[in-house]
Amino acid sequence: MTQKITLPQGYRVSAVPVGFKKADRKDLGLIISERPAAAAGVFTTNLFKAAPVLVAQEHIANGTARAIVINSGQANACTGEEGIANCRETLRLVSEACGVPAEDILPASTGVIGQQLKMDLWRGAIAPLAEGVGKFELADFTAAIMTTDSFPKLAEKTVQLAGGTVRLAGTCKGAGMICPNMATMLAVLLCDADVPVAAWQTMFRNAVDVSFNRVSVDGDTSTNDTIFGLANGASGVATIDTDIPLLQAAVTDILRQMAYMLVQDGEGATKVLHIRVAGAATDADAERAARTVGHSQLVKTAFYGKDANWGRIVAALGRAGVPFEPTDVSVTISGVTIFDKGAPTPIDADALLKDALEAQDIHIDIVIGAGRGEYTLLASDLSHEYVSINADYRT
Amino acid sequence: MTQKITLPQGYRVSAVPVGFKKADRKDLGLIISERPAAAAGVFTTNLFKAAPVLVAQEHIANGTARAIVINSGQANACTGEEGIANCRETLRLVSEACGVPAEDILPASTGVIGQQLKMDLWRGAIAPLAEGVGKFELADFTAAIMTTDSFPKLAEKTVQLAGGTVRLAGTCKGAGMICPNMATMLAVLLCDADVPVAAWQTMFRNAVDVSFNRVSVDGDTSTNDTIFGLANGASGVATIDTDIPLLQAAVTDILRQMAYMLVQDGEGATKVLHIRVAGAATDADAERAARTVGHSQLVKTAFYGKDANWGRIVAALGRAGVPFEPTDVSVTISGVTIFDKGAPTPIDADALLKDALEAQDIHIDIVIGAGRGEYTLLASDLSHEYVSINADYRT
Repeated sequence: MTQKITLPQGYRVSAVPVGFKKADRKDLGLIISERPAAAAGVFTTNLFKAAPVLVAQEHIANGTARAIVINSGQANACTGEEGIANCRETLRLVSEACGVPAEDILPASTGVIGQQLKMDLWRGAIAPLAEGVGKFELADFTAAIMTTDSFPKLAEKTVQLAGGTVRLAGTCKGAGMICPNMATMLAVLLCDADVPVAAWQTMFRNAVDVSFNRVSVDGDTSTNDTIFGLANGASGVATIDTDIPLLQAAVTDILRQMAYMLVQDGEGATKVLHIRVAGAATDADAERAARTVGHSQLVKTAFYGKDANWGRIVAALGRAGVPFEPTDVSVTISGVTIFDKGAPTPIDADALLKDALEAQDIHIDIVIGAGRGEYTLLASDLSHEYVSINADYRT
Repeated sequence: MTQKITLPQGYRVSAVPVGFKKADRKDLGLIISERPAAAAGVFTTNLFKAAPVLVAQEHIANGTARAIVINSGQANACTGEEGIANCRETLRLVSEACGVPAEDILPASTGVIGQQLKMDLWRGAIAPLAEGVGKFELADFTAAIMTTDSFPKLAEKTVQLAGGTVRLAGTCKGAGMICPNMATMLAVLLCDADVPVAAWQTMFRNAVDVSFNRVSVDGDTSTNDTIFGLANGASGVATIDTDIPLLQAAVTDILRQMAYMLVQDGEGATKVLHIRVAGAATDADAERAARTVGHSQLVKTAFYGKDANWGRIVAALGRAGVPFEPTDVSVTISGVTIFDKGAPTPIDADALLKDALEAQDIHIDIVIGAGRGEYTLLASDLSHEYVSINADYRT
């Protein structure tokens, strides 16, 4: 399934097998930009932040970066001061071998938490990693950061700006689990437009807010969740004011493509539920309602069971803590309104929705009043396989 | 498994099979108090409140009641004005047949939502229901209100007060599912002490707050959740001020016994997780942290898999929205401290906890700082069977 993705200009990739957790698979990846790039990052809000998250936040503070280094197999989370020192040491080693200042390198990790990094393995891996720079595809980097993802997640896009064409490419890894188990989401977006740092950071945050921040597999967030975005200007195309909306749309679109893939590949997921709540007093209320529905185990198991169970949806809405009048509520599943003005509609919903419920994508459109607040969440269903992945694999 | 429970004095029970959903099983139950009882009620906070909830709230407003009538098989939820009119009509029928004012009867229902009550069946059932009053045990009432509970839930207790002995008996039904599916919790507590209405309501609310309000199967709350408490004074024992703490303790204890049974019989549950958070700034913070852990699918599947997964617990704590320093956090599972001061302890937790994780009851003690806020939640685990019950049974 490896996709051939064209790298934006001015980026080179390396990826090597080190053996942090398993032998014979790539588990360390590096992306180097030939020139300093405008850098944006969004990180986990979890109070337990992994060492690489803390170091990356420090290194990205000045708005520029030259490289991204990510390992799988070890999360370097809950590892205290030693974990931070180890993270810095890995960046020093990469810096020395690749000629990029350590403070311009952004780290991320995923894998077993509570273990210190295997520094001997890192030391042995740096030479082949540096040696490989420019010899690998973005898909190799993806292979190095994947855990139990069932398919590699890559996306690309070109945009025609006033001064010429720029290219975007992205990759992410999803809710794969690593013993002792934490779902970590990592994503990288590369762009070769020349964008002022502030504008790049704003458009990146805007895009994350409507993409990765609107997906849910199980409502849990990890200690290591990280999304990086680099724009290095290597295309030679400088963005002008009128380009910004075009580039914003492209950044949003490519992050949405990746976020969709995360949910599609959610642990044990068989469905992507597009839960849209409209008519709320505020967007925040709509979000709260959508999240309550999207995180409801009863709703998630119902759609796994191909059951358009309006009772579970309205019960979740009713406990969301969002004000509305029950008689204002309607629920439409994949185009069929099964609940309207607070009561079930007199239709044979099971028959009308039989085919729609077989599909991977299910659209749940909820209206809770006449307000202007709206929010759409992508959520996975809850399957036997989810329980197996998360309960059984240590035994 | 039917338990012989001694009814408190002055209560009579009836229960009949009507066929609201299934033939040949009791599905309508009635409890009549020979005299007006001090009445307390706690109801679902869901915005979609079933008709019997709205009517019961109205009838309990004056603080006294004479009877409780509960049916299974039909929830009378999302049924609009017609549902409320039907509910009132059922109470009028019971009133007429039993000589109890309709406004002194408290209704509750559980079952299929969105359907109007089968009034023809109700009309035919009232004569045998009235005829049966005094001929049945509390366990028969329990049988009538059960849905997919795997065992009947009953508890009893006597308390020695200054003026003599009073008796308490209670029953509840748990998170059984009814097509099209909603988990409804119903509970009834009967007491024959003579207690002033305000004191009874206060102690009942206090007890509910530390029992039924501290359990979670899947975080979903239904349109019909209802708990009634009656104290009819038929023992002839009037409570004096110094009796109140004793009676409070007894009421709390019996509701806790019932709440425990709900979790024990949670859908697909194999474990009862006693999640205690201490050291929070406030009790509300402790509650929020405990609920985030107790509702985490990753935590729940881990314990189903007999895995004392501290990584999932601390990740849930870290996203709970409660302030703490990671280095202040410790986690103790069934007496073994596996995480301390923000880092895993250097012990072989798997070996030390092997036997403890086989037990039904698992104690998770979490300390997040030096504050005085604490909260204990009882939560079930998340099993394959949960998914099967909630996804598969319509197919």
